[in-house]
Amino acid sequence: MAAKNKSRAGGLRLWRNARLGTMTDRAAGLGIVEKGAVVARDGLIAYAGPETEMPSSLGQGAETIDCEGRWITPGLIDCHTHLVHAGNRANEFEMRLAGATYEEVARAGGGIASSVKALRAASEDELVAQSLPRLDALIAEGVTSVEIKSGYGLDLENEKKSLRAARQLGIERPVTVRTSFLGAHALPPEAKGDKDAFVDLVADEILPAVAAAGLADAVDGFCEGIAFSPEQIARVFDKAKALGLPVKLHADQLSNLHGAELAASYGALSADHLEYTDEAGAAAMARAGTVATILPGAYYFIRETKKPPIALFRQHGVRMAVATDNNPGTSPLTSLLLTMNMAATLFGLTVDECLAGVTREAARALGLLGQTGTLEVGKSADLAIWDIECPAELVYRMGFNPLHARIWRGQ
Amino acid sequence: MAAKNKSRAGGLRLWRNARLGTMTDRAAGLGIVEKGAVVARDGLIAYAGPETEMPSSLGQGAETIDCEGRWITPGLIDCHTHLVHAGNRANEFEMRLAGATYEEVARAGGGIASSVKALRAASEDELVAQSLPRLDALIAEGVTSVEIKSGYGLDLENEKKSLRAARQLGIERPVTVRTSFLGAHALPPEAKGDKDAFVDLVADEILPAVAAAGLADAVDGFCEGIAFSPEQIARVFDKAKALGLPVKLHADQLSNLHGAELAASYGALSADHLEYTDEAGAAAMARAGTVATILPGAYYFIRETKKPPIALFRQHGVRMAVATDNNPGTSPLTSLLLTMNMAATLFGLTVDECLAGVTREAARALGLLGQTGTLEVGKSADLAIWDIECPAELVYRMGFNPLHARIWRGQ
Ligand SMILES: [Zn+2]
Ligand SMILES: [Zn+2]
Repeated sequence: MAAKNKSRAGGLRLWRNARLGTMTDRAAGLGIVEKGAVVARDGLIAYAGPETEMPSSLGQGAETIDCEGRWITPGLIDCHTHLVHAGNRANEFEMRLAGATYEEVARAGGGIASSVKALRAASEDELVAQSLPRLDALIAEGVTSVEIKSGYGLDLENEKKSLRAARQLGIERPVTVRTSFLGAHALPPEAKGDKDAFVDLVADEILPAVAAAGLADAVDGFCEGIAFSPEQIARVFDKAKALGLPVKLHADQLSNLHGAELAASYGALSADHLEYTDEAGAAAMARAGTVATILPGAYYFIRETKKPPIALFRQHGVRMAVATDNNPGTSPLTSLLLTMNMAATLFGLTVDECLAGVTREAARALGLLGQTGTLEVGKSADLAIWDIECPAELVYRMGFNPLHARIWRGQ
Repeated sequence: MAAKNKSRAGGLRLWRNARLGTMTDRAAGLGIVEKGAVVARDGLIAYAGPETEMPSSLGQGAETIDCEGRWITPGLIDCHTHLVHAGNRANEFEMRLAGATYEEVARAGGGIASSVKALRAASEDELVAQSLPRLDALIAEGVTSVEIKSGYGLDLENEKKSLRAARQLGIERPVTVRTSFLGAHALPPEAKGDKDAFVDLVADEILPAVAAAGLADAVDGFCEGIAFSPEQIARVFDKAKALGLPVKLHADQLSNLHGAELAASYGALSADHLEYTDEAGAAAMARAGTVATILPGAYYFIRETKKPPIALFRQHGVRMAVATDNNPGTSPLTSLLLTMNMAATLFGLTVDECLAGVTREAARALGLLGQTGTLEVGKSADLAIWDIECPAELVYRMGFNPLHARIWRGQ
């Protein structure tokens, strides 16, 4: 794949002789264009479609790249991660192999608490340094946008430190980072078991300060017996609404607390996990336009057996995103390609659903659909170029990376 | 990690300041040495143990590498692959997502038959070129030995072509390749359904010719309703014995045809898959010293629900290896690290069992335990050096490669 004309590098670039999976909503399936071309001008897509229909003026003076029949998809988007964390929990993994459940580990003072301790002990620079190899693993597979949550700090300074580290990752690497403030993730030890008081602290002090600092693009929560009740989450979401921040929710992962409906009632961007969501939840999400973010890595890793109600989501027209949920306790997963395989193999998502789930629908789940997630004029020229014969290969293989090149904002 | 003295590169090398997982059979668990050193002389291990106990004369003049506390394990061994194949079967994966079972795909003329067609159409050079990216994916994770089976050729010329391609891979890359002749893998179309006649052809003509050409290190078979009966496998194994070749068997994957006992009765190096093996099978394997090769990638990919009887293997003292089963139809898996995670997560193997399964026991399953698989004096200096804090991380993570360096035969 040789560049013919490098003089206009950056300003104007043309990828030709490619097969496109445009992933546009208007087209059926993957929005395939067999003999396609993409033009990027100043980092934005100026054309994406059949090479023969491209206005010839568009490509004039462009750096031209012959893709030799390779496939181009939108750059991948990991829309649910806890990528900024300190240490790992391989020791708990060994505990679980000896028979302990996820909840037992959590109740034994392990679980999230150990990650909170490690994160608080780490400096911002250490957090960035520890998180970069994980981000690099995602980037190596064509990821151009990634969501990163806080939630292991659980006090103002440490939540801000986490979110600053997440923003810094987007400076260190050519990738779009979207942050979510997840103060209502777990109870810190100093709260001494008083969840209501901690939720007050999150809603009244930490969240407003984080928002004022411009550190959060969205507000998240963990609604579960081992975490926070729907009422407690509502306290946080009310404040998010008042501050003009969109919300999303860890919902119905281990039991049905009707988190999906709660999220939908706030017009959430997404509700995530959803193993125990029922039909009323799916219907509410469909009405609200809340994306269902499917997280098969956590399902697999904690040996869950209840699958999210994919058939209900299809039936009600709920959009589905697919994400790694990268986190040290329940999904130490840094491959979005493998995540697609899991979504297909474990939950029966089709190839088209998987690919939409890590592009268009992931963008939608981040409120970024206007900027990325499909190959459409005016969006960021975020591309993944693949050494494959058919898109199904991206879902079918396990532990293999056929990425040929990755383009972020035209570069 | 800087080399202090490159003048003797190749001849004599010393890795110091390392933590070792020696994996020796004499030691408990991983055979850990906290402050360890390894010396390689002319490609063989001259020392592996505590740095303080190393005879000082051993390291004199050696190229010395400071491992800065990193872990060293034996180079990984993938002891069951069908890595040499042509094309892929992503299209069948899409079929299965639409509801077809593995057996339905096979009966519909897809399945192995389509791989046979593709392999026969490919030249030896094309086979090597198509297989190299898969081998490179394994090597990138520290694999230093790999077993590769034939079985998509199913006539003399194409089986020889497959095995020559496998041998060539071991020339193209610094890796030990062991070949297995798997003529009794599937029935080719020209056999017109006559399994007995095809088995005669395999046993009387193809196998002796392959053996005479020195192309097979072992003989394998697929004992299953959709493949060959125990009696048919026995025909092939009798000939293998007569030719002095060790045997191994795809046994009890989809049903219990007592393949484990059959393999044991021939003193097989290994019996592989074993989901449906019963206690008599486990006991027979233990008596014969036949290794149980666990293949969680295929179990996962075909959505099998019957797990191999790990508890019985432990109880009877059957050794367990862990391998990718890399193949286009039922395990398009090229990560031995992910395979360990699957063995732990899906089957409950402990961290120690997983790591032994891809080192010492994998070597045993290939008849290579005298040459590799542990860090012991006299064996090949095949090392994997890891950027990890504890060995459990190698099993715990999914889609992340912490390999720092890989050494094959001292280099
Ligand atoms: Zn999460
Ligand atoms: Zn196999």
